[in-house]
Amino acid sequence: MPGRKIIRGGLVVTASDEIHADVLIEDGRIAALAASGTPAAAALSAEQTIDATGKYVIPGGVDGHTHMEMPFGGTYASDTFETGTRAAAWGGTTTIVDFAIQSVGHTLREGLDAWHQKAEGNCAIDYAFHMIVSDVNEETLKEMDLLVEEGVTSFKQFMAYPGVFYSDDGQILRAMQRAAGNGGLIMMHAENGIAIDVLVEQALARGETDPRYHGEVRRALLEAEATHRAIRLAQVAGAPLYVVHVSAAEALTELARARDDGLNVFGETCPQYLFLSTDNLAEPDFEGAKYVCSTPLRPREHQAALWRGLRTNDLQVVSTDHCPFCFSGQKELGRGDFSKIPNGMPGVENRMDLLHQAVVDGHISRRRWIEIACATPARMFGLYPKKGTIAPGADADVVIYDPHAEQVISAETHHMNVDYSAYEGRRITGRVETVLSRGETVIDRREYTGHAGHGVYTPRSTCQYLN
Amino acid sequence: MPGRKIIRGGLVVTASDEIHADVLIEDGRIAALAASGTPAAAALSAEQTIDATGKYVIPGGVDGHTHMEMPFGGTYASDTFETGTRAAAWGGTTTIVDFAIQSVGHTLREGLDAWHQKAEGNCAIDYAFHMIVSDVNEETLKEMDLLVEEGVTSFKQFMAYPGVFYSDDGQILRAMQRAAGNGGLIMMHAENGIAIDVLVEQALARGETDPRYHGEVRRALLEAEATHRAIRLAQVAGAPLYVVHVSAAEALTELARARDDGLNVFGETCPQYLFLSTDNLAEPDFEGAKYVCSTPLRPREHQAALWRGLRTNDLQVVSTDHCPFCFSGQKELGRGDFSKIPNGMPGVENRMDLLHQAVVDGHISRRRWIEIACATPARMFGLYPKKGTIAPGADADVVIYDPHAEQVISAETHHMNVDYSAYEGRRITGRVETVLSRGETVIDRREYTGHAGHGVYTPRSTCQYLN
Amino acid sequence: MPGRKIIRGGLVVTASDEIHADVLIEDGRIAALAASGTPAAAALSAEQTIDATGKYVIPGGVDGHTHMEMPFGGTYASDTFETGTRAAAWGGTTTIVDFAIQSVGHTLREGLDAWHQKAEGNCAIDYAFHMIVSDVNEETLKEMDLLVEEGVTSFKQFMAYPGVFYSDDGQILRAMQRAAGNGGLIMMHAENGIAIDVLVEQALARGETDPRYHGEVRRALLEAEATHRAIRLAQVAGAPLYVVHVSAAEALTELARARDDGLNVFGETCPQYLFLSTDNLAEPDFEGAKYVCSTPLRPREHQAALWRGLRTNDLQVVSTDHCPFCFSGQKELGRGDFSKIPNGMPGVENRMDLLHQAVVDGHISRRRWIEIACATPARMFGLYPKKGTIAPGADADVVIYDPHAEQVISAETHHMNVDYSAYEGRRITGRVETVLSRGETVIDRREYTGHAGHGVYTPRSTCQYLN
Amino acid sequence: MPGRKIIRGGLVVTASDEIHADVLIEDGRIAALAASGTPAAAALSAEQTIDATGKYVIPGGVDGHTHMEMPFGGTYASDTFETGTRAAAWGGTTTIVDFAIQSVGHTLREGLDAWHQKAEGNCAIDYAFHMIVSDVNEETLKEMDLLVEEGVTSFKQFMAYPGVFYSDDGQILRAMQRAAGNGGLIMMHAENGIAIDVLVEQALARGETDPRYHGEVRRALLEAEATHRAIRLAQVAGAPLYVVHVSAAEALTELARARDDGLNVFGETCPQYLFLSTDNLAEPDFEGAKYVCSTPLRPREHQAALWRGLRTNDLQVVSTDHCPFCFSGQKELGRGDFSKIPNGMPGVENRMDLLHQAVVDGHISRRRWIEIACATPARMFGLYPKKGTIAPGADADVVIYDPHAEQVISAETHHMNVDYSAYEGRRITGRVETVLSRGETVIDRREYTGHAGHGVYTPRSTCQYLN
Repeated sequence: MPGRKIIRGGLVVTASDEIHADVLIEDGRIAALAASGTPAAAALSAEQTIDATGKYVIPGGVDGHTHMEMPFGGTYASDTFETGTRAAAWGGTTTIVDFAIQSVGHTLREGLDAWHQKAEGNCAIDYAFHMIVSDVNEETLKEMDLLVEEGVTSFKQFMAYPGVFYSDDGQILRAMQRAAGNGGLIMMHAENGIAIDVLVEQALARGETDPRYHGEVRRALLEAEATHRAIRLAQVAGAPLYVVHVSAAEALTELARARDDGLNVFGETCPQYLFLSTDNLAEPDFEGAKYVCSTPLRPREHQAALWRGLRTNDLQVVSTDHCPFCFSGQKELGRGDFSKIPNGMPGVENRMDLLHQAVVDGHISRRRWIEIACATPARMFGLYPKKGTIAPGADADVVIYDPHAEQVISAETHHMNVDYSAYEGRRITGRVETVLSRGETVIDRREYTGHAGHGVYTPRSTCQYLN
Repeated sequence: MPGRKIIRGGLVVTASDEIHADVLIEDGRIAALAASGTPAAAALSAEQTIDATGKYVIPGGVDGHTHMEMPFGGTYASDTFETGTRAAAWGGTTTIVDFAIQSVGHTLREGLDAWHQKAEGNCAIDYAFHMIVSDVNEETLKEMDLLVEEGVTSFKQFMAYPGVFYSDDGQILRAMQRAAGNGGLIMMHAENGIAIDVLVEQALARGETDPRYHGEVRRALLEAEATHRAIRLAQVAGAPLYVVHVSAAEALTELARARDDGLNVFGETCPQYLFLSTDNLAEPDFEGAKYVCSTPLRPREHQAALWRGLRTNDLQVVSTDHCPFCFSGQKELGRGDFSKIPNGMPGVENRMDLLHQAVVDGHISRRRWIEIACATPARMFGLYPKKGTIAPGADADVVIYDPHAEQVISAETHHMNVDYSAYEGRRITGRVETVLSRGETVIDRREYTGHAGHGVYTPRSTCQYLN
Repeated sequence: MPGRKIIRGGLVVTASDEIHADVLIEDGRIAALAASGTPAAAALSAEQTIDATGKYVIPGGVDGHTHMEMPFGGTYASDTFETGTRAAAWGGTTTIVDFAIQSVGHTLREGLDAWHQKAEGNCAIDYAFHMIVSDVNEETLKEMDLLVEEGVTSFKQFMAYPGVFYSDDGQILRAMQRAAGNGGLIMMHAENGIAIDVLVEQALARGETDPRYHGEVRRALLEAEATHRAIRLAQVAGAPLYVVHVSAAEALTELARARDDGLNVFGETCPQYLFLSTDNLAEPDFEGAKYVCSTPLRPREHQAALWRGLRTNDLQVVSTDHCPFCFSGQKELGRGDFSKIPNGMPGVENRMDLLHQAVVDGHISRRRWIEIACATPARMFGLYPKKGTIAPGADADVVIYDPHAEQVISAETHHMNVDYSAYEGRRITGRVETVLSRGETVIDRREYTGHAGHGVYTPRSTCQYLN
Repeated sequence: MPGRKIIRGGLVVTASDEIHADVLIEDGRIAALAASGTPAAAALSAEQTIDATGKYVIPGGVDGHTHMEMPFGGTYASDTFETGTRAAAWGGTTTIVDFAIQSVGHTLREGLDAWHQKAEGNCAIDYAFHMIVSDVNEETLKEMDLLVEEGVTSFKQFMAYPGVFYSDDGQILRAMQRAAGNGGLIMMHAENGIAIDVLVEQALARGETDPRYHGEVRRALLEAEATHRAIRLAQVAGAPLYVVHVSAAEALTELARARDDGLNVFGETCPQYLFLSTDNLAEPDFEGAKYVCSTPLRPREHQAALWRGLRTNDLQVVSTDHCPFCFSGQKELGRGDFSKIPNGMPGVENRMDLLHQAVVDGHISRRRWIEIACATPARMFGLYPKKGTIAPGADADVVIYDPHAEQVISAETHHMNVDYSAYEGRRITGRVETVLSRGETVIDRREYTGHAGHGVYTPRSTCQYLN
C-alpha cells in the first residue's frame, strides 16, 4: 500500500513502556506495533523502511507553551510560526500549543482569528491554540463556551502585568467559574504583579537598573503568594487549575499542598528554571538580559526542588515558554532600565535534548522524559491519543532519537530565529535524528525535508486529567 | 502459524492508553497491536479469533500480596495454591506474588524451598515469591543477596506479631541496609505490635473479647507511628520502602509527607479498606470475625482518604492480602478471645471487579484501574514488561472484561475455598469474561479451561520505580 | 495619705501569676502588692479598703478593637464613645483601642483629629487609637511616621470593601514597608473582597437575599487566601502583621504555618466566632441580620479550631470588634438585600464574661483568660506595663470579679446602646463586681460611679512582641 | 522584724513583667513588691537593705535536669550534690530537679531512697526529684501513684540504652497510661537506641572510634523518629509528654506538629545544643570527648532551628542535663572506642549566663530568658508559685544579676567539680552578683556564704500546663 512506512529495530519509549518493536505507519497514523524479530513483525510490509537500530523511537514532543510572533513592549517575539515551528521540528517537537491573545477592548474571536492568520499555511508541524483572556466580561465569558466547543479549551490569565494582561481576582474567579462549567482549563501566570510593580519602581528609583534586578524584584514569595491565591480561587470556583512556568520552590510547595488535598491543580516548569539560575541574570555587560523572562530565573538551589517536583509528579509538564527576542535591538531596549527588557527566552528547539540530558544525569527516568515532554502535555490539553504517544491509531508523530550522539548547543547551529542561545556551549548527550509528522518525514537524518504548511491546526478536546 | 490467536474489536485499556486495537498473540506473547479496522489489522491472521466487540481488553491482574496455605495461629489459610490461583484466574488475575516464610531459627532458603514445593505444579496462573524475613542475622543477610539474584527481590518484615514474625528496629535497619546494597525492596507490615499487644491484653482483661475490639486495639495512630518509623529507618539506611496494606488515614499522611520529600516510599492498600469498615467488624453473632485482618478495618471516614491517596498516587498499588480462613472451624477459634481469630480475609477473586466498580462509581479512571491493579504492581515487583501491560513482547496475559455485565458477589458462586464472602450480596457492574495466561485460555466465556500446573514460577527483577 | 486604696483578700490573677495578695493603690497606680495575711500586708494602710475575699482581682480588660460611632453604609454604629465606654466599664474593660478612620482623599491627620473630637471628654475609661489607612500615598506614608511618634502605632488596612476601605496589594506592601521602618504594626482585615463582591452580586442575582447568604458568600477559603497573602506581603516587607477577627479554621492554619516558620505574625479572634455560628445567621424573620459582621460567623466546627488556636498561642488576642447597629432602623436597611445590612455586632460589655465562661467550660485556663483579654492586647499595642497587668507601677485599672455569681445576658439589662444582644438569654457564671480606672472606682458593687471625661487618651509605644 | 530584707532599686524581671520595684523579704518569702520611689516603697522597712541599682532582680534559676553523682558506664558523674548545688548557686540557679534512678530488678522506692540519701544535708540550694523508671511492671506502676502523691510527679523513660535504662514501647505505653491517670508527667529520652546500637557496632567495626563518630551514629533522623513515636504513644495513652534535651531540627519539627494539633507535648533543649556543635566533637586529640552527650551535639545549622523553637514556644524549657565527667580518668575511658566515653557534660553553673548572652545577642527577650530558665520549669514540674517567679508569697529565691559585667568562662574559675569547661574561653556579658535562697544569702557579691544542708527537698505538685 502506498505511503506505508515501517520503523524497525528501535527501542520504542512511551510514557509507560519501553519495548523493542517495529512501528508500522499507514495514512499518517500508527497502524501497528509488532515485537521486533517476531513473525508478526516480519509480516509487516511497507514501501519505506527506516532503520532505528540502536536508537529510541519516541513520540514527537508536545510543547504546550509557545509565543510565536508575540507582541511585547513594542516589539515582537523574533520567531514567526514558520521559523519557530521549523526549529521545533529540528528539536524533536511535532506539536505546539501557542497562545492567541485577546487585547483589552476586543473579543476573544478577534484575537483567535488573528492568530489563525499568522499560523495558517506557515507551520512545519501541527499546532493548536490556548487563548489569553485579557478582558473578562459578560461577552468574553460567553465566547469561552464557544471556543471550548471548537477546540480552544484552555484560557490563560495573568496575575501580573497590570494594564496589559492583568486580571483582578474577580475576573479570575468569573473565568474560573465559567471554565468549571464548560470544561475549560484555566492556565495561570502566578505572580503578584501589583506588588512586584512597587518593587520595580523602588529598585529603579535606587538606580538598580541591571538585568539581575529583574530577578530580585520578582520575589519568589510573590510567586508563591499568587500560586496560593490562584489555587484558592479555583477551589472556590470548583475549577481545575494549571500553573504555568513554576520557578520558585516556595510556589511548588503550594502546588504540592493542594495536590495532597486532592485538588485538580497542575504545574508546569520550563528548562530554563531547571538548567539556568540568577547566576545567568548576573552576567556582566548586560548579557544577563538574555535570561530575562517572567517568572524569573531563581537561585540555583531552587533547581533541586523543581527536579524533585518532576519526580513526585507535583509538576507534570515541561514546556518552553518559547518567546525569543534578539539581544541586538530587542533585549537592548532595556539597557539602563531592566523593566524595559522584553520578557522571554528562546527554547523550543532545545527542550527534548535538555530533558534527555536530565535522563543521562539521573534526574528522571527515560519514561518520565516522554511523559513530561509528550504524553502529559497531550493529555493535559486534550490532544491525546492523537499526540503524545506511539500507539495504534495515534498520529504518526515520531522521533528517531540517537541517545549516544553528542552535540554542543550554540546559536551558530540552532534554527531558531534569534541571535543567541541561552545554553551556548552546553554539551548534550543525545540528538534528534529523524522526525515524522503525521507520517511525513520533516527531518531526515538531520536534513530538513519539511515545508511550511504541512502543519495543520489541531482542535483540542478538554483536559483529560479531571476525574 | 499454529498457536496464533487474535482478539479483535475490543477497547484495549492499559495504564496509559485506551485504544481500539486488535491484539495478535504468538507463542504466548503479545506479538502485535494494530488499529482496529485498518488494513494493517486486516493483514493480521491467526488460527483463533476472539471477538471482544463491546468489551475491554486489559492486562491480566497482578496481585502482589497473597498468602496461600499460610500457617497462622495453629491453622492454615484455606486456599491452596491450586484453589487460590484458580480463583484468581476467575477474577481476572493472572499473576500472584505470594509470601514465602522464613521461620525463626531457619534459613531463608528453607522457607523458600518449602513454598516452591507448595506451589510447583499446582498453579493455574503464574506466580512469584516475596520472602518474609523473620530472623535477621549475618547468614540471613547474605542469603538476601542470593535471593535477589535468583529473582526473589523483595523482603517483608513485621513491626507487629512479636515472637512470630516481629523484627526489632535494629533488625529492620540491617535488612534495609542490605536491601539498599543489593537492590531488594523492603515491604513493611507497619503496626506497633509491641504497643498493640499491651492494648490487647488490657482489652481482654476488661472482658472485651468480641471481634470489634480487634479494630479498636489496633489503633490507627499505631499504624501511623510504625509507618513513620519505617520511613525514618529506610531514610537512615538509604533504602526504598513499600508499606503493605495501608488502612489508616493517619498512616497515609506519613506516606504523603515522605513522598513530598522525594523519598522512594510506596504504599499499598487493599479492597477491604476501600469497601469495608469497622461497621463490619461490629456485625453481631461473631460475624465480625469474618472481617478480622491486620491492619484492621477502619471507620468509614478513612475510605475517602484512601481513595484520595490512590488518585494522588500517594498509594500506588491495590493488592488483596488474600489470606482466607473459613468461618466454621477457623475464625471460630477466636470465639471469646478476638486475639485468637486467625487474621486474614479472602479476596483474590474479587479485586479486579471491585476496582472496576470504583471506576463506575467515579473514584478512579479506567486507566488508573489498570495502573493500580496490573501495571504498577508488575513494575514495583520487577515483572514488567512481561506482566501488567498489553504491548508487543509482553506475556499474553489478557482479560476480556465485560464492563456492562452485572453480578452479585456471593460465597455460593465464588471459587475461593472459603465458606463466606466478605462482600456477600454486593452488586457489581462489570465481569471477567475470558482470561488468557501466556496465550492459553484459562477462562473461556466463564468456563474454567485451565489446569493446575499451567502457571509457572516467574523470577523477578528488582523494583522498577527507583531512579 | 489621701487617695490610697487597698484591695484585700482577693486572688490576684495576672497573665502569669495567681497569688493571694493585697493590692495597694496610690495616686492612681498600683503601688504595692503584699502577700495577704503577712506582716508586710498588715503594714499597708489606706483611706479605703475594698474587700475582695472570695473574689478575683484582675487587670481591667483591654479591648483592642472597637468602632464607636463608626460610619458604615450611610448610618453610624449606635454606641457613642460615651455610651460605649460606659458599657465597657460595666463589662470589666478599662481600656479600648478604637479605630480612627482616614477617608479616601483626606489625610490621616484629619481622620485622627475627628476621632479625638468624638472621644475627648466623653469616655468613662481610657482610650487610644489605631488608624485605618484607606488611601496609601506618599503623604500618607510620611504621616505614618509622625503618628507612630505621637502614639498611634498601628495601622489597619482592608483587603475587602473595594471603593471604601480597600487597599490593593501595592498599597499594602508600601504601608508594610513603612511600618517595618517606623515600628508600626499593620493590622489586616483579611478577606479577598474583590472575589467576594463577585459572589455577592451572583447571590443577589439568584435571589439569595437573606442574611444567611452573607455567611455563604464570604467564603472561609477567601479569608484563608487573604491571610496567606497578607503574610507573604509582610514577609516581603520585613514587617510584622496582626490579623484581625480571624474566624475561619483555614485562616488559622495559615497563621500557624507562618508562626512555625518564626514570622512575627499575630492573630486576633472575637467572642462571636467562639460562641456563635452560621446557625445564628440562619435565624428566621431576618433575625439573622443581628449576626452580620465581617469576617462572618462560620459553621460551628470552626469553633474548636479557634479554641485550639487560643491554647497553642497561634491566636494571641480576643477583642470584640464592637460595632453595634440597632436591629430596628439599622440592620433593617438590609431587608431584601443582605449586602446592605450594616456589618457589625455589639460586644464590648460581654467579652470578659464570655471568656470567663470559657474558663469555667475548660477551654482556657484562668491565667490564659487574663493573657488574651488584658496582658497581650496591652503588650501588642504598646500599652504595657501601664495596662494589662497588676504590678507595682502599673495603672490601677483593676476589676474585682466574682467567679461564682450567675447572670443571664440580655438586651434588657445590658448597657450598650443597642436594641438587641447577640447572646440574649445566655447563662454565664461569673460577673464583674467593682471596677477601678486609674484608681477611681467607676463601677462600685454593680453601681456605675464613673463619669464621662474620666477616661483619657493614652498614647501608645510600639508593639512589644517584636524581638 | 528580724530577718527582713529589702532589695531596692533594681529592675525586677519576671516571665511577664519588667518593673522598677523594691522587693521585701520576710520569713524566707517574698512579702511585698512596691514601686520604687513611691511612698509605699518608702514605707517598707527591713533589717537589711540590698542595693540593686542598675541590676536585674530575677527569680533564682530552676534547672529541671541534673544528674549529680550519677553512675554511668562504671563511673560516676563527678559532681556530688554538695559540689553541684554549690556550683548551681554560683551560676544563679536556686533549685534543681535531679533524677533518682530505679535499677532494673529494684523498686522505685529503693532508687528514690538512695537519692534522698545522697542529697540530704548536702545541698546548698533546694532540690527535688524526678524518677527514672527502668523497669515497668505491675509493682512499678503502683509505686508511680504513690510517688506522685508524695511529690515526685515526673517519670523519665529512655528509648535508648538497651539493657540499662531502655523501655520498650509497651512499657512506655503502660507508664504513660498510668501517668494519664495519676497526673504524672512522662519525660522522654527520645532516641531510637536499638537502631543506634546497630550503627555504633558498624562504625566501630569500620574502625571509626573517635568521639566525632558519636555524633554521626546517633542520627538526627533517629531522634526525630523516637520523638514522633513518643508523641503517638502519648496520644494513645491520653497522656502529656515532655521530651528532654531536644537537639535535632527534625525532632523539633515533630514537636511543632504535635503542638499545632493541640497536644500537650513539651520540649526542652540545653545550652550545649544552642552554643556548641559537631565542630566541637571533632576537636583533635580526643578533646571531642568533652562534648560527648546524648542526644549528641548537632551540626551548627540546627542551632537556628532551636532558637526559633524557643521563640515560637515549640520548646519551652532550657535545662542543663548537667552530668559532668572529668576528661582525665573518666572521658578517657573511651579512648579507642567512642561508645565507652561516659555520656554527659558539665553546665549547671553556666546556664543562666549563657542564656543572658542570648538576650544580648538578640536571640530571646529578657522576659523569655526568665520564662525558659525559671518560670516554665517551675510550672512544668509543679514548683510554682514557690519557685520561678518574684511575687508575694513566693519563696525568696532571688538573684541580683549584673547585666553589664563581663566574664570569661573557664575551668580555672568555675565551681563545678570537673577538670574542663565546655565553654572554655567564651566571653559573656552579664554575671550573677548575689543569690538568695529562701531569703538566705548564699552568694554575696561573689562570695559564697551558703552551706551544705541549707537546701531542702521540695516536693512537687503535678505539671501546671495541662488544661
